Order: sequence, then C-alpha cells, then structure tokens
Amino acid sequence: MTSLPPPDLTVVGGGIIGLAVAWRCQRRGLRVTVWDGDADDAAWYAAAGMLAPAGETSFGQEALTALMIESSARWPAFAAELQRETGIDVGLGAHGTLAVALTGDDLAEARRLWAYREEHGLKVHRLPPSEVRDREPALSPRLRGGAHIPDDQQVDPRRVVAALRTALGPAVVRRRTAEIPPGPVVVAAGLGTAALTGLPVRPVKGLVLRLRGEPGLLRHVVVGHVDGRHVYLVPRADGEIVVGATQEERADTTVTAGSVLDLLRPATELVPELAECELTETVVRHRPATPDNAPLLGRTRGDVIVAAGHHRNGVLLAPVTADLIADLVVTGRPDPLLEAFAPGRFA
Amino acid sequence: MTSLPPPDLTVVGGGIIGLAVAWRCQRRGLRVTVWDGDADDAAWYAAAGMLAPAGETSFGQEALTALMIESSARWPAFAAELQRETGIDVGLGAHGTLAVALTGDDLAEARRLWAYREEHGLKVHRLPPSEVRDREPALSPRLRGGAHIPDDQQVDPRRVVAALRTALGPAVVRRRTAEIPPGPVVVAAGLGTAALTGLPVRPVKGLVLRLRGEPGLLRHVVVGHVDGRHVYLVPRADGEIVVGATQEERADTTVTAGSVLDLLRPATELVPELAECELTETVVRHRPATPDNAPLLGRTRGDVIVAAGHHRNGVLLAPVTADLIADLVVTGRPDPLLEAFAPGRFA
Repeated sequence: MTSLPPPDLTVVGGGIIGLAVAWRCQRRGLRVTVWDGDADDAAWYAAAGMLAPAGETSFGQEALTALMIESSARWPAFAAELQRETGIDVGLGAHGTLAVALTGDDLAEARRLWAYREEHGLKVHRLPPSEVRDREPALSPRLRGGAHIPDDQQVDPRRVVAALRTALGPAVVRRRTAEIPPGPVVVAAGLGTAALTGLPVRPVKGLVLRLRGEPGLLRHVVVGHVDGRHVYLVPRADGEIVVGATQEERADTTVTAGSVLDLLRPATELVPELAECELTETVVRHRPATPDNAPLLGRTRGDVIVAAGHHRNGVLLAPVTADLIADLVVTGRPDPLLEAFAPGRFA
Repeated sequence: MTSLPPPDLTVVGGGIIGLAVAWRCQRRGLRVTVWDGDADDAAWYAAAGMLAPAGETSFGQEALTALMIESSARWPAFAAELQRETGIDVGLGAHGTLAVALTGDDLAEARRLWAYREEHGLKVHRLPPSEVRDREPALSPRLRGGAHIPDDQQVDPRRVVAALRTALGPAVVRRRTAEIPPGPVVVAAGLGTAALTGLPVRPVKGLVLRLRGEPGLLRHVVVGHVDGRHVYLVPRADGEIVVGATQEERADTTVTAGSVLDLLRPATELVPELAECELTETVVRHRPATPDNAPLLGRTRGDVIVAAGHHRNGVLLAPVTADLIADLVVTGRPDPLLEAFAPGRFA
C-alpha cells in the first residue's frame, strides 16, 4: 500500500462556497481535497438563488455592495463554464426582478432601496401599478407600484451544488473535523467556521417554503414589500415557486406555525392564486452571519485562509469568492476587493 | 391443509367504523373477519376526536342530533371496555369544550348553535370574555364572548384504532376487494362504499394540522368562531395540538397554501402563542359524506348491511353505530334509532 502525497490544498466545508473555491483552485492546477462534513444545516439547500446585488442586506455597506455587483457580473461565465464541464444546467435566469409594493408605506420603503441601486449604477425601471400587472397578471390589483430591475438574475442553488460536486468528483470526501488540518487550507465551513477558527459567525434562522402550481403563473422573480414585511417569490420552469424567507436570531430548527404564516400571508396577498398551489416543502436553515453581516474573506494565520460568513449572499457571492480566494491561494496576494472583508477586523 | 369454515360475518373496511362494528359483533359471539383494504385515505387518521354532539354539522337534523347524543353517552363505557381488554388508554377527556367567538357577528352565530344545543338538553354555560380567559389565559384578549359546554368529550382516534386492532387481533386481515363478498356482510368501507354498493358517498376534503408546543398551553378543547371561520384546537397531554379542519368539495389530496392559511390564521388569532408552536404535520383526508350528510346505517339487500357515510362524525358515532349494527346482525331487527338512516332513502 502506497500512501498518497498530501494535497496542495484542503478545503474544509462542502457547501456552495467551499465547492466553488475548490473548483476554481482545481482549474488553476492545484490538487484539491474538499472535506465535506455532510452538515444537514447547509444554507444553500434552502436558498432561493436570487442574484440581486445592492439589495436590502447591503444597504449602506459600500464595499459589500461593490462585491455583490462584481459577483453578479461573473455569474453568467461561471454558470456557462460549469455547464460546459458537467452538462448540468444550473437554471440561470435573467428576466430580472419585479419589485412590488402593496401599500403607500411599502412603496416609500421600496423607493429608498431603488434609489440606492441607481446610485450604484444599477438600472431600475419604475412602473405604475397597471404596468406591473401587465407584466405579471397574477399580482394583486391592490398593489400601489413597482419596478423592473432588469439585471437581476437567478439560479437554482441545488443544481449549482450538484454541478460543482460533479465537476470535483472524487476530490470531495466525506469527512468531519473538529480541527483545522495542517498544510494550506481554506476554511469554508459556514457556521462551523466559528468553532474551527474562533471567528464570530452566528446563525440567522430562515424558513423557506416551496410551492407547486401550474408552470407560468409567474414569469419574474417577485420581491414584495407587503405591509412592512418582505417576501420573495422565485418561480422555476417546472412550476415550483420558492417563497422566502424569514430571518430570526435563533439557532433552533423548528418550523413554527408563526413563521409559516409570516411567509404565506404576504405571498398570498401579493399573488392570490398562490393559495391554490401545493405546499410541498418547509425548510429551515441558518445563514452564517458575522457581526457586520459581511463575509470573512482572507488569511487568518500562516497558511489558513477563511471564506465564510456570507449570510444571505452565499449563492450570489460564490463566483467572486471562488475567484478571489483562488487568486490568494495561488499568488499569495489579496485582491484589493478583499480588503474590507479581512477576518482580522474582528480580532 | 384444512380449509377454515367461513366466518359468521365479514366486515369490509378496517376504519374506525368497521373495526368498532367487528369488535362489538365478536363480543356477542360471532366469528368475524375484517377485510382491511389498507386505504391511505382513512378519515380517522386525520380526525381530531372531538365528541361534540349537536354541533354545526347536525344543526336542524333532529334524528342525527339524537344519534350523536346517544353515541356521546356511550363513549365512556366503550372507552373503558376497550382499555380493560387491551390496556390501551384511548385518551378520553372530559373537560368539556370552550366555545369562543372573536367578533360580534361570530358571537351571534355561536349563540344560535348554543341555543340549539340547549333545546336538546345539553348544558351550555355562557361566559363573559373575562371568564373565558380565566379558563384559558392563552386566548386572545380580543374575543367577544364564549361558553363552556361541560359534557363535550374528546378521544385520540389514532389510539382508538390501535386499541380496536389489538382487541380484534388476527380477525383483521389485509385484503382489498372490488366486490361485496358472499355471506353475512357489513360494508363499512367509507368512501369505498360507493363503488361497492352504488350508494351515494362523496369525498369532502379536509386538512388537519398538528402543532407541538409546551404541554399546558391549552386545557380545553377550543372551538372558535373567528371572523366567520370555524377552527378547533384539540390539545393532547403531551403538548400536541390538533388544528382542524377545512371542508372542501373536492377529491384531491393536495395540501394547498390557502388551506394551511385557512387554519393557521384563525388559530393564531384565537391563541397568539400558537405562532411559536412547531408545525409537525399536515394531513389531508376525505370525509365520506352522503347527500344529506347523515350516515347510511342498515340493510340494503339479503345479508348485506351498510355502516358508512359518517362525514365528520365517524369517531363520535362509532359506539352507537357498532352497538346498533351488532344488534341488527344478531337479531335481524333494526333499532328504531336506525330508521332515519336507512340506505334505502337514496334508492
């Protein structure tokens, strides 16, 4: 029996960030092993896959907004390359987002977000209620206004992960660890990053529902402001509609009656016909979040690099995270875009 | 190999009615075989087990109301005998029902039902809102009034069926049939009765939810009139709360988003803390209903007796159905109580 030489890089964490980083590093010639802890709390499993930079979670965070815009721009090439390599279509859609507001107060809040987007060079086409409903006839006649955001995209995160796993093949091994292994390492362990590194990553509980109806009920991703609540509806070609997402600062995995109501009520107010759709899935997962809700991207010590804490933006930020971390691994020099996300800011 | 002699009686249908009839017949000395079609649409599986005679479904149906009152009176002895024989506690509770009304209109409607109950000799203690909340502090402070109905009871239908199956042991065989077998037969096949007999039994779809919270949140079965909707909350000792039930004239088994909302919304309006409970189960079943929503009880031809079509009242009516059908099988003479329910009324 001959023992294998150690890999050039070990990635701890088999979620969307760990897999994307490993794939990019492999494509740059490194021998990579991914330790997939097989966590049943993988955030990507619940994620709807909206690729909407400069959304509510980055409001006022300039560096994060810039990173999101950069990653959004990289998604088409990332998806195309994945599909070429694996044959798996990750469901990249580019019909844009339709943002809608139910009440006057909702409209005022939505307008603040739209203005923020425009300040960052993103297109926002404001629409009167009649034109919103021309685009999506299933929307409630009560709505007060909306906007089309043409450059927003979407993917299906479950397909993205399946494609990345296919691309990486035997480089992904099932292995849990309580310690950072020796040698060059990227820690991309989501919530588990806290225990491995001591960095402050906390769970933000989210419930996501999946409904099933007739294909074609919705054509756009719809982001709704509904009586002060936010809800998004992400339609897939097969009739599935992902409804998300609650945000609670708690670590339990309970699907509570109240959280189901918090999604179904605004969803059906926005699109009354959703009441006829089948409720096929209720999934709770936890977003890995840092104190400033921006990710941890960079070297912590010696040959340990961290790529974690992406909060609500793991899917959107996967391409830019993978590229910039692969650069850092290969060249040893951090891209200027990474500066604001250095893990040392919490030391 | 010796062939067994034919049984004295075959019961087609292994739901709560078929099992109860078979058990009573067995106790009267008959050799009984139950053909359990193993239907995955057994109505008892969803049922909350409220034993509330003279409720909304019997309003104005005097013969049915009388049968419900009679069966309610038989439940304690039925449950006790089952427990003696099998050791299984079927969860008979006798704290009564707390009926509550949220709005003035709800209160007016509830009062009509309460008056109907009193006309039939059932006790109804009307309570001002403060006293309703003294009994159930978790109820919303918004409610406009209520009543305690002390003689209402409850059981756990899943335990009742488990006990009946235990009592009958090998007399229950798994067997589907498309035809009524020869010899003395009781057809207690729920919805399947239509195909077997040609009698008009239609499905009435119902969704029931199960929540789980801290034991003791509710002490009574709560029947709510909430903005024109009805919802009931049946607490079990272990913290489970059964929330029922929608009623729709359709045969599909889809758990729709709208039906979940139709239960969760009034339930949490009535008891706000339910929002914190875990949603553990969503079950759709179909009540077997006849054109007048009263059961089919009696002989159809030769040696075929029918006991089916109990709609929302299968659990409540199981004891009286079992006793009277066993009488009919043994003596050949129908009890006068059965007269109004003769299957011939739809001939």
